[in-house]
Amino acid sequence: MTTSPTPLPADSYCVIMAGGIGNRFWPVSNAQCPKQFSDILHTGKSFIRQTYERISRIFPDERIFVITGAEYEDITHRQIPELPCGNILKEPIRRNTATCIMYAAEKITKISETATMVVIPSDHFITNDNAYLEDLLDGIEFVRRNGGLLTFGITPSRIETQYGYIQVRAAEAGKKIAAVKTFTEKPDYELAQKFYESGDFLWNAGIFIWQVKDIILETRKHLYDLYSLFENNTSLNTPEEEEFINTIYGQCPNVSIDVGILEKSNQVYVLQGNFGWSDVGTWHAFQTLCKQDENNNTSNSSQVIFHNSRDCIINIPEEKIAIIYGVNDLIIAEKDNYLMICHRKEEEEIRNFEKQLKFRK
Amino acid sequence: MTTSPTPLPADSYCVIMAGGIGNRFWPVSNAQCPKQFSDILHTGKSFIRQTYERISRIFPDERIFVITGAEYEDITHRQIPELPCGNILKEPIRRNTATCIMYAAEKITKISETATMVVIPSDHFITNDNAYLEDLLDGIEFVRRNGGLLTFGITPSRIETQYGYIQVRAAEAGKKIAAVKTFTEKPDYELAQKFYESGDFLWNAGIFIWQVKDIILETRKHLYDLYSLFENNTSLNTPEEEEFINTIYGQCPNVSIDVGILEKSNQVYVLQGNFGWSDVGTWHAFQTLCKQDENNNTSNSSQVIFHNSRDCIINIPEEKIAIIYGVNDLIIAEKDNYLMICHRKEEEEIRNFEKQLKFRK
Repeated sequence: MTTSPTPLPADSYCVIMAGGIGNRFWPVSNAQCPKQFSDILHTGKSFIRQTYERISRIFPDERIFVITGAEYEDITHRQIPELPCGNILKEPIRRNTATCIMYAAEKITKISETATMVVIPSDHFITNDNAYLEDLLDGIEFVRRNGGLLTFGITPSRIETQYGYIQVRAAEAGKKIAAVKTFTEKPDYELAQKFYESGDFLWNAGIFIWQVKDIILETRKHLYDLYSLFENNTSLNTPEEEEFINTIYGQCPNVSIDVGILEKSNQVYVLQGNFGWSDVGTWHAFQTLCKQDENNNTSNSSQVIFHNSRDCIINIPEEKIAIIYGVNDLIIAEKDNYLMICHRKEEEEIRNFEKQLKFRK
Repeated sequence: MTTSPTPLPADSYCVIMAGGIGNRFWPVSNAQCPKQFSDILHTGKSFIRQTYERISRIFPDERIFVITGAEYEDITHRQIPELPCGNILKEPIRRNTATCIMYAAEKITKISETATMVVIPSDHFITNDNAYLEDLLDGIEFVRRNGGLLTFGITPSRIETQYGYIQVRAAEAGKKIAAVKTFTEKPDYELAQKFYESGDFLWNAGIFIWQVKDIILETRKHLYDLYSLFENNTSLNTPEEEEFINTIYGQCPNVSIDVGILEKSNQVYVLQGNFGWSDVGTWHAFQTLCKQDENNNTSNSSQVIFHNSRDCIINIPEEKIAIIYGVNDLIIAEKDNYLMICHRKEEEEIRNFEKQLKFRK
């Protein structure tokens, strides 16, 4: 990025985590094509394609890795043909973020022991790409000078019980990058309200930067079992990698990096990001990213006509024309052969629908 | 029909009226494919195909006519390839049933002045084909012996304001074929309730039988303008027919046979039909013809799953799979590129939707 004051160091790597299954958006995202590979917002590009294009402005293709389920290798290739084949890390089973990050860190450390590693989700929405990339570069520079584990925090815009919250040390409040005092995963509503009102807490955006040696050291300290499964391996970056991974993955702990390491480490920092962020994790989040009419109806298409209706969310194929008349509080989603209509107060149920259909067959 | 006691007289003709536009079922029926050409009940056959197959058990193809909008000539041919091309009567514009019946009667009288003519709608649902055909044959025999205009009546099964009601003369009550005392088109609710409770009234099913000379005579008496447009024509059943029809049709009165002739004539009889009838004129009627689950949900497909929902009606393509969760009182219909979701209390609005979309373009 020519406008950036901070050039990208040569041994910096970016890992795109694409292991999600996105069942909250069924049928728009589904087991064949999870959310990260979908274009829920009808931008013309899937989330992962957008993520790739964004970070490829600073990372060359050979230093971008995608880690995803083995069954998504093909769709990843199709959506990011620029990526070298060896840069897709295939997980034989889902094992949460600590394992997935350890796998990537071990692979990268075998290329360069002094490498820095940026870890980003594949399915988030970013409003200001330039601000985001500058923050990444600032974060890389910080961990290279300072060490430690850096996570990105977002100033909360509402009371939200589905995110992790980060509290910075009082003495460091207001600094762009500050030492972390506490982590709290998915608080209950009352606590989330306190966090929101105090102004001292940030949402954990799931964006991490560290030197690979530091994350491996912290994994050794806090998740020794995971560390030891990778210790002394000679298979990564060789033809034996897939077999090795398939052998050990089932034994790896099913724990998030937040719970497994960040909450325990005393070396955690947070960069307060200000680039416009949404994890697009719920239909509510989808709604805030789309235009709403005067009755709070949201659709992803100009071909949806609302009459005498309010608080509806609709996501249908672009070529579809819909008339929604005299109804309230519905989520309406359609893709391929699937149609889903759900009352908004039942949104939490949507993630079970695909499974229910499977068991029905 | 070999089981019938009454053989079909050689100069009997059947006219299938297929001029409707079926906009109450949009988008399942639409301007390209109105209700009569649709298979709303997912039986595997359109209404008009079912109608044709039913009456072709007693009428040979050359004595079956379909009268429909000129734009539906192709779809009629495709759905009833057995029909001779000349047996499709093309209306250049919609002109209600009096004109449409006069056109067919004039055509048939030029083939045989002593002919008898059965007029049936193309888009009704009949439960008992044998009983229906026997009633047609009985009706034909009656008008050939007795003359007059015979209409078919159905014993009302609910208070209904959308139909015409027929009252028979007290002295003839209980007879299979009885002289008519009064006609009342679409009464208000209070009157419909009285009709229903009295037990003296029948619904007008829109099925008529008469000798062509009688209907032409009655048209001359009650709709002289219409009669005179066809009087002395030499074009019907010649290559000039289409041009002739296109020239006069705009001048023909836009009136139903019920209002224009039957209500005024003193020669009207009613045959009390008992063959299981529905005009499938509303989604409510659709619902009564389909299986309902324990929460009064109706769908045309086994691939629709209702959870925690009641009183919904859904009609979607066969290959579609739908999950309907936590909603009540919806009509959900989908076809081709169109999706419609409407609260049941707004059902009357549906007929305007296609027009609204047209004006929007």
